[in-house]
Amino acid sequence: MTEQPIWAAIAAALRAEIAEGARRPGDRLPTEAQLADRFGVNRHTVRRGLAALADEGLVRSRRGAGVYVAPRSTDYQLGRRVRFHRNIEAAGRLPEKRFTLIETRPARPVEAAALGLDETETVVASDGISLSDGSPIALFTSIFPTDRLPGMADALARVHSVTEALRLCGVPDYVRTSTRISGVTADAAQAARLEIRPGAALIHSESINVDTTGRPIEYGQTFFVGERVTLTLDHS
Amino acid sequence: MTEQPIWAAIAAALRAEIAEGARRPGDRLPTEAQLADRFGVNRHTVRRGLAALADEGLVRSRRGAGVYVAPRSTDYQLGRRVRFHRNIEAAGRLPEKRFTLIETRPARPVEAAALGLDETETVVASDGISLSDGSPIALFTSIFPTDRLPGMADALARVHSVTEALRLCGVPDYVRTSTRISGVTADAAQAARLEIRPGAALIHSESINVDTTGRPIEYGQTFFVGERVTLTLDHS
Repeated sequence: MTEQPIWAAIAAALRAEIAEGARRPGDRLPTEAQLADRFGVNRHTVRRGLAALADEGLVRSRRGAGVYVAPRSTDYQLGRRVRFHRNIEAAGRLPEKRFTLIETRPARPVEAAALGLDETETVVASDGISLSDGSPIALFTSIFPTDRLPGMADALARVHSVTEALRLCGVPDYVRTSTRISGVTADAAQAARLEIRPGAALIHSESINVDTTGRPIEYGQTFFVGERVTLTLDHS
Repeated sequence: MTEQPIWAAIAAALRAEIAEGARRPGDRLPTEAQLADRFGVNRHTVRRGLAALADEGLVRSRRGAGVYVAPRSTDYQLGRRVRFHRNIEAAGRLPEKRFTLIETRPARPVEAAALGLDETETVVASDGISLSDGSPIALFTSIFPTDRLPGMADALARVHSVTEALRLCGVPDYVRTSTRISGVTADAAQAARLEIRPGAALIHSESINVDTTGRPIEYGQTFFVGERVTLTLDHS
């Protein structure tokens, strides 16, 4: 058996401290000089160990401010069936969806196009925030066609879950047909709601869900916090 | 037939000017006052027309700096077969991949794990930049197992295409098994290479491709420019 290089041993020691919770997300690691002292090596060796941890996404360096334990990101699976509560639970976290607005109003052009509606038709528009283990991970807007889903506004207000509300409105199942993903930075209002700094990276996703007959029943836009969520795709 | 509201007519006129190329990505639109004057309406009506265009992603407002024609984003399809050149061509753009580094070196832990290698094995590591119609859209790192792909470093240097280089190394076809997507902001070095401002949003993707026997043959990390690329997923 080959002996572990010293930098790898340092990485392994810090990795174990993070895994055990002795160092938590957001904690600052000791300086390179302190770590060199602790392990009895030079700073070059410490730096190589830290670089390995950064490669794994376990730590992040902020220029001039040291090295921090990276936030634990929540995996969020995208595929033919995307269900918020189930997804967050599958990642071992506690899901919560808070609706901040539910209103019925005329469809906007982009919404009418996505849902295949006439522009004279109305939609149920809902806004809110998604949380994972109590930490805000996304702002969402979900748009539903009023005519196809009578009672949807009341149902959403009652059950705080899109899947449950759709079931109450006679849609027992639905599937996603498309997702479009781009990257943007948070403006001041988004940052305040998501408890991140303005300018932080957001993943913007736009999606369409259809019922079992293929009729669009939800057009969604979501802004995920880039460092708190990893969208995962299984292509197999 | 119902008559079009005035705000919708204003949006349609500006949409046509953008579509015809009279207003190009990055161009600043006339001010609200100028547009109100041109169309003979009040500023409230102009604002509603501009809001519709912003909803469609055609224009963007920068606080205190007016309204601009949004950059034309390149659609990039993710799925079981992801091919850079084919993807960019499918979006009606000219693809180009420039390799800035091709080297053979020991596998890093995260690479060894992704490719199912022993940490004593070596990989061919390549770095580069992807362009669409001459505009930088992504920085990529592609890692290949040396043992499974003899001659890969030379092939990459010769053909500047992963798909072609793999074919030359005896891999006629490959499929993607997984993609992981998160959001980050560009550091100074990334920003300079991508010709964007430091702090601009990047989409970070991590992916694994396998050959037809299921053996991993490429581990990729890509940083897409958020405002120049839209990752698209077709779940049907």
